Amino acid sequence: MPDAVTCRDEHITPREQPGTGRPIVLTTDFGLADAYAGVMRGVVLGINPGATVIDLTHLIQPQNVRQAAFVLGANYRFFPDGSIHVAVVDPGVGTKRRALLLVTPLASFVAPDNGILSYVVGDYLDEVPAGGGTAALPSSLAAYSLENPQYWLQPVSRTFHGRDVFAPAAAHLTLGVAPEDFGPPVNEMVWLAASQPETRDTGIHGEVVYADHFGNLVTNIPAGALEHAGGIQVEIKGRRIAGLAGTFGEGDPEADGGLIALVGSHGYLEVAVRNGSAALTLGAGVGEPVRVTAAG
Amino acid sequence: MPDAVTCRDEHITPREQPGTGRPIVLTTDFGLADAYAGVMRGVVLGINPGATVIDLTHLIQPQNVRQAAFVLGANYRFFPDGSIHVAVVDPGVGTKRRALLLVTPLASFVAPDNGILSYVVGDYLDEVPAGGGTAALPSSLAAYSLENPQYWLQPVSRTFHGRDVFAPAAAHLTLGVAPEDFGPPVNEMVWLAASQPETRDTGIHGEVVYADHFGNLVTNIPAGALEHAGGIQVEIKGRRIAGLAGTFGEGDPEADGGLIALVGSHGYLEVAVRNGSAALTLGAGVGEPVRVTAAG
Amino acid sequence: MPDAVTCRDEHITPREQPGTGRPIVLTTDFGLADAYAGVMRGVVLGINPGATVIDLTHLIQPQNVRQAAFVLGANYRFFPDGSIHVAVVDPGVGTKRRALLLVTPLASFVAPDNGILSYVVGDYLDEVPAGGGTAALPSSLAAYSLENPQYWLQPVSRTFHGRDVFAPAAAHLTLGVAPEDFGPPVNEMVWLAASQPETRDTGIHGEVVYADHFGNLVTNIPAGALEHAGGIQVEIKGRRIAGLAGTFGEGDPEADGGLIALVGSHGYLEVAVRNGSAALTLGAGVGEPVRVTAAG
Repeated sequence: MPDAVTCRDEHITPREQPGTGRPIVLTTDFGLADAYAGVMRGVVLGINPGATVIDLTHLIQPQNVRQAAFVLGANYRFFPDGSIHVAVVDPGVGTKRRALLLVTPLASFVAPDNGILSYVVGDYLDEVPAGGGTAALPSSLAAYSLENPQYWLQPVSRTFHGRDVFAPAAAHLTLGVAPEDFGPPVNEMVWLAASQPETRDTGIHGEVVYADHFGNLVTNIPAGALEHAGGIQVEIKGRRIAGLAGTFGEGDPEADGGLIALVGSHGYLEVAVRNGSAALTLGAGVGEPVRVTAAG
Repeated sequence: MPDAVTCRDEHITPREQPGTGRPIVLTTDFGLADAYAGVMRGVVLGINPGATVIDLTHLIQPQNVRQAAFVLGANYRFFPDGSIHVAVVDPGVGTKRRALLLVTPLASFVAPDNGILSYVVGDYLDEVPAGGGTAALPSSLAAYSLENPQYWLQPVSRTFHGRDVFAPAAAHLTLGVAPEDFGPPVNEMVWLAASQPETRDTGIHGEVVYADHFGNLVTNIPAGALEHAGGIQVEIKGRRIAGLAGTFGEGDPEADGGLIALVGSHGYLEVAVRNGSAALTLGAGVGEPVRVTAAG
Repeated sequence: MPDAVTCRDEHITPREQPGTGRPIVLTTDFGLADAYAGVMRGVVLGINPGATVIDLTHLIQPQNVRQAAFVLGANYRFFPDGSIHVAVVDPGVGTKRRALLLVTPLASFVAPDNGILSYVVGDYLDEVPAGGGTAALPSSLAAYSLENPQYWLQPVSRTFHGRDVFAPAAAHLTLGVAPEDFGPPVNEMVWLAASQPETRDTGIHGEVVYADHFGNLVTNIPAGALEHAGGIQVEIKGRRIAGLAGTFGEGDPEADGGLIALVGSHGYLEVAVRNGSAALTLGAGVGEPVRVTAAG
């Protein structure tokens, strides 16, 4: 029955078709005005015409590795299992910093070895390294140095590895190239001291780590630390906010300018203003100290 | 002939593949700097890996439901029949405002019940409700309250229903879930008093309802109201513009700073400046009164 | 064996499915706040539900045809062979300027005939026309005037040909419509005098033609002109930069504010500042003169 056999072979084609593979998710500081992000997509499609490429954001502040690390760490879990994140905030492009592929049980990541994966790796560490430097990878993770030139776009520029190294690696991953084919294994990675809140006698001392488009101030105090939910007080920039709100709509514009504290969608304590911007109202941004105490 | 039968069953797969389904179109005020829009795409792909997701815009002014309603109403007809629009400008997220699925003959819409669908619904009303409040749905439309937790992303946050309620609903629709499975039917919706032009003895009195990226000022006066096309005069901010231009290139920079009036691509009267910005030239924006009279 | 035959016929379907066709790449000055770019995607999907549409950029400066020409020319080679570029910076929309389809050995382009394809066409000219005007097409290229109304979105507006003429043409191309079906052949195109560097006794005299999101200043001096690489000196705004750096990380913040010159990813000489913005540091932008001499 040769016809049926032919048929069967051809069935392989649709299984390799567009969108059935692992999505590629881009996080960069390339902005949207220049062609850089678009060119990365072009390179991916040149390797795998059926790849699905989506943006997490291209508007990380230029060269702000710490911000990219937070945004990636807070959001990668909302993408399908097996997603391939390409994270390129890379002031050291072209120098000796390594280019990495990190494989976790949930997703893969291609990125420079500059700390941009600290929050992701931190999810798998029992204890985080104090004060930066490097972190040894736990046995649940694997990483490789992207040194195999077979998977680079030639010639490789020294200034745009997003196009020439990282995008091609992600595209080849969607085609089924094995992680270990990209280069030698890596056992430790550059670690950014993620700003961790401290619990002292005087309360939980944290800080703002992200200010979003609405002016909501996201802190580094995770929801789990707010045991006294409903019975707490949040202090920021000399203002005291009593209790946790459940929604952005609960602020009282009369009493306190609509200022509220709540657990935001990132899973951390946020300070917000009803129908307004907490960043503008308070004149506060990243780095602003925040203290949580039991309600007096 | 079991081989051929197997073959036939497998043929079902490609028909369910990426892009063959209904496109999902996003309209939000989430901006492009934060991860919110990207996360919505991630959630959609987690439910339907083959979904096609495109952006109408994520740069609706924060919490400006009226602007979103206009943009959605003016543009949804340019998407394929059966498109699923996800419209999230949602200052009331987490409060008791309903989450809706609206089914029209042309498209479906998932959105908060806050008036954001007013222009869309208005296309099917013989007479629009005066002064806001609610609008009873005509029999040509069906709507449902998104109350079935089976189609939510769990746990549901109280601050990001775009991710937890609306994106999942759209994704499940592309997989063929029936509208009535999402929740109980709804017979009326919140209605924004869309600013309608008034025809008086002194002419047609309207206003600017949208200013675009080029500084073109889009009014609420529809093309159909300009019966005297060519024989009309448009007044705005003390300036008089004689006649309708056909293109942006017709303004006379010498005579009047290139100021022109024309029927724009939205299907409404626009005021523009040749190779320039009417918004900047006139110092005018949304809400600016516009009057149309017969040419003197 | 009718089953097997049926099977075979059905196999045709997956081959015509999404993403397997030629990608459509958008370059416009429409910005991201308005619905214009999204509507173009909607129109494409209405014609070919399986089309792959990606953005090069929508943030060309409003009506800056010259900038769009440079960006397109510097980047189209990074997209898959056969890609269809839709380039719409079109201040003359609705006037008598032609709408074109240009077919090159690498890619196709749909765009207004206003010079926006000058850099692309220049890649195929032995000698570029001096001083603008028009350029005769070489025999390796073919072009057509998009005059066949069968491939327009009806009714055609006079202000948004991106939606009504260009996007539909690109979508029909992905469906296999032959280039000559779109309209009559065209033998010459509007030509922008691309600013070419001049080699004089006093060195290579060029200028900045693009400033990117990071503040890197891209000049019109191609890598090939820098024969003395390593032995050159670059002058801009009264500053002298000795030698070519290999990466952005090589600037010396102590000695010269981190100012460096290097061959950037566009393939042209760039001036940059390590971890900073050359545009801000120098107060320089497009049009700034740049001179390259042999190192003294």
